[in-house]
Amino acid sequence: MSGSVTGTIFKVSTWGESHGAAVGAVVDGCPSGIPLSEGDFVPDMARRRPGGGGLSTSRAEEDAVEILSGVFEGVTTGTPVSLLIRNADRRSGDYSEIADVYRPGHADYAYDKKYGFRDWRGGGRSSGRETAARVAAGVIAKKILCELGINVTARVVSIGGINADGGTATQLPDDGDSYGGLIECVISGVRAGFGEPVFDKLDALLAKAVMSVGAVKGVEIGAGFKAAEMKGSENNDGFYSENGKILKYTNNSGGILGGISDGSDIIIRCAVKPTPSIPLPQRTVGRDGNERVVEVKGRHDRSIVPRAVAVVEAMAAITLADRIMAGMASRIESIKKFYFTEM
Amino acid sequence: MSGSVTGTIFKVSTWGESHGAAVGAVVDGCPSGIPLSEGDFVPDMARRRPGGGGLSTSRAEEDAVEILSGVFEGVTTGTPVSLLIRNADRRSGDYSEIADVYRPGHADYAYDKKYGFRDWRGGGRSSGRETAARVAAGVIAKKILCELGINVTARVVSIGGINADGGTATQLPDDGDSYGGLIECVISGVRAGFGEPVFDKLDALLAKAVMSVGAVKGVEIGAGFKAAEMKGSENNDGFYSENGKILKYTNNSGGILGGISDGSDIIIRCAVKPTPSIPLPQRTVGRDGNERVVEVKGRHDRSIVPRAVAVVEAMAAITLADRIMAGMASRIESIKKFYFTEM
Amino acid sequence: MSGSVTGTIFKVSTWGESHGAAVGAVVDGCPSGIPLSEGDFVPDMARRRPGGGGLSTSRAEEDAVEILSGVFEGVTTGTPVSLLIRNADRRSGDYSEIADVYRPGHADYAYDKKYGFRDWRGGGRSSGRETAARVAAGVIAKKILCELGINVTARVVSIGGINADGGTATQLPDDGDSYGGLIECVISGVRAGFGEPVFDKLDALLAKAVMSVGAVKGVEIGAGFKAAEMKGSENNDGFYSENGKILKYTNNSGGILGGISDGSDIIIRCAVKPTPSIPLPQRTVGRDGNERVVEVKGRHDRSIVPRAVAVVEAMAAITLADRIMAGMASRIESIKKFYFTEM
Amino acid sequence: MSGSVTGTIFKVSTWGESHGAAVGAVVDGCPSGIPLSEGDFVPDMARRRPGGGGLSTSRAEEDAVEILSGVFEGVTTGTPVSLLIRNADRRSGDYSEIADVYRPGHADYAYDKKYGFRDWRGGGRSSGRETAARVAAGVIAKKILCELGINVTARVVSIGGINADGGTATQLPDDGDSYGGLIECVISGVRAGFGEPVFDKLDALLAKAVMSVGAVKGVEIGAGFKAAEMKGSENNDGFYSENGKILKYTNNSGGILGGISDGSDIIIRCAVKPTPSIPLPQRTVGRDGNERVVEVKGRHDRSIVPRAVAVVEAMAAITLADRIMAGMASRIESIKKFYFTEM
Repeated sequence: MSGSVTGTIFKVSTWGESHGAAVGAVVDGCPSGIPLSEGDFVPDMARRRPGGGGLSTSRAEEDAVEILSGVFEGVTTGTPVSLLIRNADRRSGDYSEIADVYRPGHADYAYDKKYGFRDWRGGGRSSGRETAARVAAGVIAKKILCELGINVTARVVSIGGINADGGTATQLPDDGDSYGGLIECVISGVRAGFGEPVFDKLDALLAKAVMSVGAVKGVEIGAGFKAAEMKGSENNDGFYSENGKILKYTNNSGGILGGISDGSDIIIRCAVKPTPSIPLPQRTVGRDGNERVVEVKGRHDRSIVPRAVAVVEAMAAITLADRIMAGMASRIESIKKFYFTEM
Repeated sequence: MSGSVTGTIFKVSTWGESHGAAVGAVVDGCPSGIPLSEGDFVPDMARRRPGGGGLSTSRAEEDAVEILSGVFEGVTTGTPVSLLIRNADRRSGDYSEIADVYRPGHADYAYDKKYGFRDWRGGGRSSGRETAARVAAGVIAKKILCELGINVTARVVSIGGINADGGTATQLPDDGDSYGGLIECVISGVRAGFGEPVFDKLDALLAKAVMSVGAVKGVEIGAGFKAAEMKGSENNDGFYSENGKILKYTNNSGGILGGISDGSDIIIRCAVKPTPSIPLPQRTVGRDGNERVVEVKGRHDRSIVPRAVAVVEAMAAITLADRIMAGMASRIESIKKFYFTEM
Repeated sequence: MSGSVTGTIFKVSTWGESHGAAVGAVVDGCPSGIPLSEGDFVPDMARRRPGGGGLSTSRAEEDAVEILSGVFEGVTTGTPVSLLIRNADRRSGDYSEIADVYRPGHADYAYDKKYGFRDWRGGGRSSGRETAARVAAGVIAKKILCELGINVTARVVSIGGINADGGTATQLPDDGDSYGGLIECVISGVRAGFGEPVFDKLDALLAKAVMSVGAVKGVEIGAGFKAAEMKGSENNDGFYSENGKILKYTNNSGGILGGISDGSDIIIRCAVKPTPSIPLPQRTVGRDGNERVVEVKGRHDRSIVPRAVAVVEAMAAITLADRIMAGMASRIESIKKFYFTEM
Repeated sequence: MSGSVTGTIFKVSTWGESHGAAVGAVVDGCPSGIPLSEGDFVPDMARRRPGGGGLSTSRAEEDAVEILSGVFEGVTTGTPVSLLIRNADRRSGDYSEIADVYRPGHADYAYDKKYGFRDWRGGGRSSGRETAARVAAGVIAKKILCELGINVTARVVSIGGINADGGTATQLPDDGDSYGGLIECVISGVRAGFGEPVFDKLDALLAKAVMSVGAVKGVEIGAGFKAAEMKGSENNDGFYSENGKILKYTNNSGGILGGISDGSDIIIRCAVKPTPSIPLPQRTVGRDGNERVVEVKGRHDRSIVPRAVAVVEAMAAITLADRIMAGMASRIESIKKFYFTEM
């Protein structure tokens, strides 16, 4: 397998390379009855698209999403929703000079070892281009969550160590280098009781989902790494009761206890590494094993962080939607109520 | 489901509650031909067992592992290996007073919401006791990796923000409180080319595995959160060649590029929160919604961090063994060589 | 993997060999709230147990099922239910003479090729003994279905080509040979709308489940193989309406249309081959490749068919319970109703 | 989920409705290094396409397969292969009159109950049109098997109870009715040792795969239903040795013992029901519950059997390719040889 399918009930597959004809996603297990049109994808696709400021590649991508199946008369039917996004602006010629060199920080060498060779056009499958399909699938997940009153919102916390509030595009020095950053994603409106104990804890699956975004190198939930320096009396979130609802004084748990949602906001932070493609000279080797100096030209992001925001949201939404759908059979009473009243 | 099965080819299930008769693991997909005896489990079970210093609970656990299936004449047969660990020292009476109160930092409330009620004896399934079964399964994973020259070693980096080198047991203040900490796990000897692109990236699955340990709140690979403050020219690991082998000058990638091992050591760090069970008074609510003050008595660890080391190793080993076994069919040439020479 | 885990939400694993210490099953995903005691297993375990007439092996098996986890105060908690059945009457000495010979009709040769060697004691993992664990897991599945008003009942249709009504034990000739037979399983009370289209059709999963019973060589649904000789006008089941309920004049579909239950009884028939262990001389080869004549002595069933009835029921129940639980999220309206009223 | 993903390592998804824009398949886990071009799909797509004689619908389908990803310079890269087949000849107007009636023998009613409504254009997702995507994916599976010297060939055994040898198109009476039939699939060249014990037996997965073809109502392996009337001494296949190879005198096992290939031809037979769409008057009900008489007009096959041959082959090939790829890690020696010589 090549790891391109995720989920238990709400199952998302993606396919496509950066310089092939198109990329796409198939959502198997999308529930019936959700209004869905091609226009629904425009806002999130625009957020992921390059060009939102001085930090991004100048490659023009329309990124219109075509719905090929699973929707009838404007509503999902319950069968697989196939989404297609054409690669409009392919210039594989740009990449031919790095065809036989291992770019530092890229997956070139690892792919070569795994598959025996690779599609060297712009990273092929390992390109960030693949995330366009994730964002498209995420739009459907968000529509499901929206029906449940759940909101998923990510934002840039910092780029290159500098707080990102107030705009980031003009802050980076004109040094030809690239910059990493921090993203925080907050999921609000999740009721308590979702997620599974043990290996499939909700935080474990969210960590997997977010870490599967190519540039992410670290994930934390709630207090995260700060919890390592806290005492139990500081870190424990005391419960209280208000209007019959059980709430917490603090949210160091980040909305998840024992792998299960506790009714507070779910808070995820992740570290995004700097874009590995930089026009500066770097020492490396070629496929032939000879040492080389490479300067990665082409159209690349100064920082991938702003564009990754929509991707992190998509992965969080896909994961949570699946967990809610997979968690409906936890009690025999819920199964009975469903069986006798819904069917 | 309750999330107690993990893996694609090397599939591990665990079962059992802290105060039931036993906990156990079933390893489905263990390859044939591995020498395995009950003595093999002793060292890692001892490392996880309480009592290794002043930080741990005084509960006595023998934690002998019984092999119930899958081994014949001292060697694995390829069929499921069932491992059983009895709960020798159960005193559920200790816990009855917290049966109807939601302990801060514990999964009590979340379980109640998910399942409608819970086994309140010592945390039931959400207890750290469950990890004994993970460690047992991890021993088998390590034996597989050992045959491939791969070594998995974790260690405590710090407890309560204090560097752990030179012994940690006596360092904690006598304040009745509990302390979190940092663990680092290094996997050495992994060849390049293992792991899958996209959703099932090796780092994504390792993040899931480590985050699924109850007390872990953050995971990072290689440079991790530091990468968010780095430039591309600093973070990129240049390649060089030595005796025909391709190596890297640095290891900010933590041994994984594009989700696939790059031949360097795999480096994982995780943050462990302080044990939520503390004998200090905490504000909370009961099942009836009334506010309460609880002091969690019983035998609890001052810090779970030292015992979690063996659990983190086990989860890393289980994950990597599965990824290697699931990655054998990446090339048609490998399939052909296997088919025509092995069968 | 060794294929010992099945199911999406209601996930059943089995482990154990015929002459090891025990066999067992773990049910991950059992919903909370089901009363369950060790006595619940007695009737089905007795039906599978040898000795129910002159056709079965004289091996004495108590087959008491021990519940090791997942039940608290007599009710399932939602966490894995671990079931253990000891192998009380092991005499591996009986089998030593066939340790290096491939018994015709048995899996000896195939296991040897797959794993490099095998546990030759009574078939090891390929023994019918493994089905004791399936029957135990099936008892839990039946309890879930019973709560939904669904009944699963199998019966022997024929043995050795002779209609089985009125008792079969005395009908077989005293020829030392073994006999196959037919089993029919009827599932009544299933509402329309369960199962999935395409690869995971309900009939496809039932066929897999029943064919996975070692001796089964054929499975059919509804009209089954007769449908191959029918015209559309004969085979199509017309619908009619009665008291607001939609019913069918006939049931050639066997209760499943397009992979989804249609509200009629689900009807499965399967062919069971004769027990391969016979005391008559058979030509075969040994592990050394030399030709041999083998007579398989020991305690064996004249016909496995009567004992397989409980196993077929168990596999059908396990499959259907999982499909119902996995099918609760087909419509957004069902998800919303669950989310807002159950949680 | 809607059951449209199958396989463990070689993972196939399909999507698309009969009257949408297109149908397609995504093959995740296709090994790298296989030459693949769009021309490779032509022969099998032609075999499945209508018009191969007087038995099939006159609907014109070009069924050209477009490769959208996973192939670079004519060779598979190891990343997902996305295949697209446009629906050239859609006339949804043909179907509008049956939009609110439940056609006997079709999935209309079952879909309505599951999803709350359905795409009524030509059956939507439940149409045989979906199998075009399966055949396309099957072409890739066959290419893998071909590299291993394995051949998958199915043929029509009979239609309407009449032996099919010598051409079938002119044999059916001109009665406006439809006819079922039998298909046999032989897989030759499979070495012994593939498949898994217990739930994922090779015959169980083949039964699932073949039964998942919409019109199939029964599946048997080897002697199949005849085994139910045989004695052990007749049914057991004795082994012999020839030139160092272990062979069997007979093949009642159908090439599978204990769920694992035994080195003989794998033999699968399946029963295909008559096409439910017939222009004869049939009694049924509408969505409103009122009784109706329906005549299903449009372009329909007199018998689906000849076209189903390529679909059965595809499902068998997809299943076997996955089982071989998932079975490479059965022995520690195989893992070691792979790890040290391939990587």
